Amino acid sequence: MKITLKDGSVCEYAQPMSIIDIAKDISEGLARNTCAGEVNGKLEDLRTVLSEDCTLNLVTTSDPKALSVLRHTTSHVMAEAVLRLYPNAKVTIGPSIEDGFYYDFESDPFSREDLDRIEDEMKKIIKEGHELTRFTMPRAEAIKYFEEKGQPFKAELIQDLPEDAEISFYDQGGFVDLCAGPHLQSTKGIKAFKLLSSSMAYWRGDSNRARLQRIYGTAFFNKDELAAHLAKLEDAKMRDHNRLGREMKLFLTVDVIGQGLPLFTPKGTKMLMKLQRWIEDMEDNEWGYVRTRTPLMAKSDLYKISGHWDHYMDGMFILNKDDESKELMALRPMTCPFQYNVFMNEQHSYRDMPVRMAETSTLFRNEDSGEMHGLTRVRQFTITEAHLIIRPDQAEVELNNVVDRIDYVLKTLGLEGDVSYRLSKWDPVNREKYLGDDAYWENTQKYLRDVMIKKGITFTEAEGEAAFYGPKIDIQAKNVYGKEDTMITVQLDCAAAEKFGMYYIDEKGEKVRPWVVHRTSLGCYERTLAWLIEHYAGKFPTWMCAEQVRVLPISDKFEDYAYEVAAKLKKAHIDCTVDHRSEKIGYKIREARLDKIPYMLVVGQKESEDGTVAVRSRFAGDEGVKPLDEFIAAITKEIETKEIRQELPQDNAQ
Amino acid sequence: MKITLKDGSVCEYAQPMSIIDIAKDISEGLARNTCAGEVNGKLEDLRTVLSEDCTLNLVTTSDPKALSVLRHTTSHVMAEAVLRLYPNAKVTIGPSIEDGFYYDFESDPFSREDLDRIEDEMKKIIKEGHELTRFTMPRAEAIKYFEEKGQPFKAELIQDLPEDAEISFYDQGGFVDLCAGPHLQSTKGIKAFKLLSSSMAYWRGDSNRARLQRIYGTAFFNKDELAAHLAKLEDAKMRDHNRLGREMKLFLTVDVIGQGLPLFTPKGTKMLMKLQRWIEDMEDNEWGYVRTRTPLMAKSDLYKISGHWDHYMDGMFILNKDDESKELMALRPMTCPFQYNVFMNEQHSYRDMPVRMAETSTLFRNEDSGEMHGLTRVRQFTITEAHLIIRPDQAEVELNNVVDRIDYVLKTLGLEGDVSYRLSKWDPVNREKYLGDDAYWENTQKYLRDVMIKKGITFTEAEGEAAFYGPKIDIQAKNVYGKEDTMITVQLDCAAAEKFGMYYIDEKGEKVRPWVVHRTSLGCYERTLAWLIEHYAGKFPTWMCAEQVRVLPISDKFEDYAYEVAAKLKKAHIDCTVDHRSEKIGYKIREARLDKIPYMLVVGQKESEDGTVAVRSRFAGDEGVKPLDEFIAAITKEIETKEIRQELPQDNAQ
Repeated sequence: MKITLKDGSVCEYAQPMSIIDIAKDISEGLARNTCAGEVNGKLEDLRTVLSEDCTLNLVTTSDPKALSVLRHTTSHVMAEAVLRLYPNAKVTIGPSIEDGFYYDFESDPFSREDLDRIEDEMKKIIKEGHELTRFTMPRAEAIKYFEEKGQPFKAELIQDLPEDAEISFYDQGGFVDLCAGPHLQSTKGIKAFKLLSSSMAYWRGDSNRARLQRIYGTAFFNKDELAAHLAKLEDAKMRDHNRLGREMKLFLTVDVIGQGLPLFTPKGTKMLMKLQRWIEDMEDNEWGYVRTRTPLMAKSDLYKISGHWDHYMDGMFILNKDDESKELMALRPMTCPFQYNVFMNEQHSYRDMPVRMAETSTLFRNEDSGEMHGLTRVRQFTITEAHLIIRPDQAEVELNNVVDRIDYVLKTLGLEGDVSYRLSKWDPVNREKYLGDDAYWENTQKYLRDVMIKKGITFTEAEGEAAFYGPKIDIQAKNVYGKEDTMITVQLDCAAAEKFGMYYIDEKGEKVRPWVVHRTSLGCYERTLAWLIEHYAGKFPTWMCAEQVRVLPISDKFEDYAYEVAAKLKKAHIDCTVDHRSEKIGYKIREARLDKIPYMLVVGQKESEDGTVAVRSRFAGDEGVKPLDEFIAAITKEIETKEIRQELPQDNAQ
Repeated sequence: MKITLKDGSVCEYAQPMSIIDIAKDISEGLARNTCAGEVNGKLEDLRTVLSEDCTLNLVTTSDPKALSVLRHTTSHVMAEAVLRLYPNAKVTIGPSIEDGFYYDFESDPFSREDLDRIEDEMKKIIKEGHELTRFTMPRAEAIKYFEEKGQPFKAELIQDLPEDAEISFYDQGGFVDLCAGPHLQSTKGIKAFKLLSSSMAYWRGDSNRARLQRIYGTAFFNKDELAAHLAKLEDAKMRDHNRLGREMKLFLTVDVIGQGLPLFTPKGTKMLMKLQRWIEDMEDNEWGYVRTRTPLMAKSDLYKISGHWDHYMDGMFILNKDDESKELMALRPMTCPFQYNVFMNEQHSYRDMPVRMAETSTLFRNEDSGEMHGLTRVRQFTITEAHLIIRPDQAEVELNNVVDRIDYVLKTLGLEGDVSYRLSKWDPVNREKYLGDDAYWENTQKYLRDVMIKKGITFTEAEGEAAFYGPKIDIQAKNVYGKEDTMITVQLDCAAAEKFGMYYIDEKGEKVRPWVVHRTSLGCYERTLAWLIEHYAGKFPTWMCAEQVRVLPISDKFEDYAYEVAAKLKKAHIDCTVDHRSEKIGYKIREARLDKIPYMLVVGQKESEDGTVAVRSRFAGDEGVKPLDEFIAAITKEIETKEIRQELPQDNAQ
């Protein structure tokens, strides 16, 4: 048989060989570092015997794919440790997942102390250095095996396997688990691991079945990588907007009001207002948009025209459904037809086009309270919506401008490095889900692709991610835990005008269907605030801070001067407060740091006599004593230009 | 018997006397001008015979009460005319109403031409000078009378009268109508009348019963008063926001979206944004408010605490009522508990009080589509909401400031002359409808009364108009047709803190219940825009106009200069457009006038060479040629100071 390796070289063997033996045949050193083999693209255990021609990629510890093998083996070791310590626990399943692994047990809940004990037991098992061996068993025997061991979940799993499935097991020094593999060869291969947390889960994810305890952990091939990963997790937890945003008192949720319905505090509201006014002013005064304000609900008739009544009713809040004496209505999940009706309120000539209509638009999604999360999964949100009603010949220029403006928004927010661009296309295999024919999709997708190519934007293409009426440029961002969501979207829609009856009058006096570009410029305010909190860990650029300056009088004697300073700052439209409490200056400074205030102005005898302020900032620590006017000029420039000043490194933090 | 007249004088008569005879006894001239008598406060026909001691007010034509007698008589004359012209018409009822009268007929609809014919016939009847005589009939005979005349509605009316009711009739030259009176003595008393319109109405207001045709009319004692009234009606129609606001393209409604759900066009939206930013900036930067942004819906739990679930469910939009798998929620009809929860998110010391929380708050009312009207009766609206959480000792100062700020808002809008103040009190007779005891109401009402007295505000007091939790200062405004609504409200609420669990920590470290002031500063944006449209007949002060300046190039040659001028205006934050069409300058000026633009800048050869503009305004007509910078400085000052420039009188309108 011929084995074609990753580098293209070919090994020939007369007899069947296991993957590990092939690795050894190439080099003993290679074999030591190999965890699994990819045979014709499928991950296989090292002990798998090859007997036919194939391609083989030897997966070494430096390959990310090796991590899943390591972590899966670590989950087996954890299961063994749990059974050693808690013999009554029932095992279920324990896969590797992104960034780690978990295993679900039927048992009492595990405390952190339990996890520590389990970790210690795992270290023993690893030290014992059990070899993992693979074997198979006939179905009936396998079921009997687990039933006798008092492990009914495993027995159930086997029962549910297809009739012809090979039922394989791994044994590590007597601990036997039903498993398809692959695995490391020995528990000694686990060099660095950590159990992270425990939480409740349902057997097979079904809330009507057994309540299980899930333990999450992670593992790496060396301690440095583990340490780096744990530090990253710690940092993510620190930045997590759903924790930090509440801690900084930017928003709250209230049980009797409901999940997914955040209340913004004065601080959070001020930040949102700064973002909103910035976007509205750019759209209205710089980018040539007009603004509308349209109702948050409509009769069912509108949604029947738009298709939402048939295709999206589950996601909508329906009104007056139970009361026939009142009109059947729904809260809106989109703004499109509301703005189309404003467009249709006047006749438009080809000379008036494009008509770019923006709205700060609140939308609703009727989702389950269990799916709600902080500011990213909410039932009500407000987006920087717009619909550009354009002549077909204006598509290239308008799309180009839209993408430029999004780039400006991302850069101004400092989020341009956190996003990826995706061309979301139709799925030609499932064409019944889409309007239009091949030519329609080729054409519209080309418009969007060309805009990105021309700008040198790196992007992926994804089939089946388009809207049913047209393709999208989706700008994706990840949260601190790596979960990706769409932040901003640009859609080309050549079908809406026909559906809603929009037209303009062309040069010949004839009615023509316009095209529509749906787009957001900053996306949804709630989500973007979440990304900002996580990106900056709450240390926002000065311009978007609710409290930009805090004036700290050294003692009560200088309170008057402090208020004088604050009054001048306010007159210059700088958001500031005075810490007038009778506390030590050191205490006030510490608290201002914790509150992540960009600038502290300390004022005492000298400052009040000279009309100066002692400036301390999050960016440069002590910035020295300056005339107040000089400070105001500098911060005003910083705010007006929306500068993102570099933060002081953590260790030298003021 | 002793008759005490209005001036306190007493007439004594030995025998019963009719009112008209008493009037004649006093003076023949008086008798000629007398239309009715008010006997012990009740309006009676002149022919009513008095036989007991009473007070008597002789109602002369100069008394507004006389108008209702005149108009009621005119409605009888109209009914007679209709029956003369349309013998198959069935008569029903025809009362006098505010500003006129109507009469409902079962008949074919009446066109304007029909109304003109009826008017002519009425003039004949008046000229004929029939005396109106009153008589009574037994019930059975009365029913039979109308049945024989083919007037079933009248027969039905008699059937429904109480058993012991006196069934009285008026006869004018053979036309007999069932009527309690009072009436003029002769149709000759009708000196000036006009039929205004006709519309459909249901018999007894019941849509399941007969469809009737209602004719509206009015009448006066002299032609000048009628002419003045008709001019006023014409003006009201011109100003009617529901007509003018649509005509000016400030808003629209759409059938498939629904009534009471206005869509604001770019022009209307810009006006609302100017109002909104002004109020938000005043509240946030000048008045010491903090701002919140809270969700538009909540779970039923919240409304159960607030009491709305039990007392206001009919007025709310309920969500997920038909789906038990989802949470039962409702759109909010108020903001109060949302802001209370923001307050409760932090602990407050007596030193932090008051906490004044503002919100640009959208609210919802689930009303029938038939009740909807323009911008004043809507299902969704946005108010300038705030709740001031105060210490009881701060009530006087805070209420005082709130009322001052409302005064500032009204004066800035130019509406201060259009409103009346009302102290809305509880009703001690229906105390079960209210929280608290006599002392609670005496005390809270006194706070509000004292604020108005101290300021010298003229106000009325109205029992039974309070909120169930506290009294209100209601600032009322009328629309062009005289219909009154509340524009702005200030409420003192000493019960909310207990209900929602709000407290602050006092000097002794103890928890104390604060008081709450609910208030709006401009009221609801939709309604206020309606009042502004009607007050200014669309000729708004420059600062709130969506289009403040229109630049009119005399010909294409000066288009570049026109755009240069516009660019400079935009840079100075002045909203302007360029009329670049190839139309004659006279045409462009006429159209700008129709669009009610405050300033037109006409530019041609001379202006483009000199950097000047020829200014024409709504306020002063031709304002001469000015350097552009000078014009910008002047209009900027006008906008910044929110000046309300006097309009040019109609006749000299540019």
